[in-house]
Amino acid sequence: MQTLLESIQGVPAHIPVIADAKRGDIGNTARFYAKALFDAYDFDAATVNPYGGHDAVQPFTDYRERGVFIWCRGSNPGAADVQDLALDGGGALYEQIARSARDWNEHGNVGLVTGATWPEQIARVREICPDQVLLVPGVGAQEGELEAAAGAAFDGHGEGLILSASRGVLYASRSGDYAGNARRSAEALRGRINKVRDALLARG
Amino acid sequence: MQTLLESIQGVPAHIPVIADAKRGDIGNTARFYAKALFDAYDFDAATVNPYGGHDAVQPFTDYRERGVFIWCRGSNPGAADVQDLALDGGGALYEQIARSARDWNEHGNVGLVTGATWPEQIARVREICPDQVLLVPGVGAQEGELEAAAGAAFDGHGEGLILSASRGVLYASRSGDYAGNARRSAEALRGRINKVRDALLARG
Repeated sequence: MQTLLESIQGVPAHIPVIADAKRGDIGNTARFYAKALFDAYDFDAATVNPYGGHDAVQPFTDYRERGVFIWCRGSNPGAADVQDLALDGGGALYEQIARSARDWNEHGNVGLVTGATWPEQIARVREICPDQVLLVPGVGAQEGELEAAAGAAFDGHGEGLILSASRGVLYASRSGDYAGNARRSAEALRGRINKVRDALLARG
Repeated sequence: MQTLLESIQGVPAHIPVIADAKRGDIGNTARFYAKALFDAYDFDAATVNPYGGHDAVQPFTDYRERGVFIWCRGSNPGAADVQDLALDGGGALYEQIARSARDWNEHGNVGLVTGATWPEQIARVREICPDQVLLVPGVGAQEGELEAAAGAAFDGHGEGLILSASRGVLYASRSGDYAGNARRSAEALRGRINKVRDALLARG
């Protein structure tokens, strides 16, 4: 807990810190999870799990100055087990969750998590939520293809995308010059992301 | 963290301690959550959120000596938003989750969470999973009706039910004799649960 607090405090103030905590629980418990993440740890944003419905999410979105990312379509292999289930009336569960995330965005602070490993699902979520920020994990250790994922996730203005890399940067080196290798790994990713962005904007 | 560890260690060894943590994340993260709850804290069981699919759950069920309760049908008002969504081919999402929890029970350590506030859904889960333990929260502070919930949750042998009460016992008194009031609240619940059980067994 102390280590986590110190890590958060060590991040320069202009860089947002997202708690990928995927909390999801009944309203009373969710209120205390939100309090812990936003008040005690002072995270700028958090990921939440939508399985509990609106009252599991609202205590987070009520913090209007913080961001809330609904875990919509996971990057993991098992994500399809549940999130791709076909609903009566058409579409998959994750598409319905995307529509809910759009409805729950009354304060403009709700984004969605969609795994880089499934670019087709990213494109579908972007279609349902044209104006919300997508947090896209899964490049690097999980081997999602960055170009396909970023291409599907950017909004029409080349914005609205946070492409996150955790293990790929954190463990960029196993044997010395940890900071240098982490920096180079992050910079290489940034370069590739910006290249996709430039190509999209050039196409107009 | 220290307070939680000391609380767990303060519980007599013959009483199982369940972490109602509702963790749900991709496999690599789930492995560390399971390690934290089962190895570091030594919980006897944990609740997990099934939205991430099988690989979000398996790191928990791999601990064969620990119990894993799949959050199937929540006790909260918003549970219906997602868990009651009708699937293509019939049935609701929570029923499909119940079937998954049955399939994922290869080591016989998987139970399900079904809220006391929705007895019809409990009965349906019991029908799909006749032999698994149901963890039923929501009597007390959440005002689920104990008799209806317990009647629907017991298996054919008057077993397979853990009816949990948290706030109703924890906050049984706001002004003195905390231990005595908590004890009396728990004993009153136990009496009511056993009465339902006796009536079921008498009916045969």
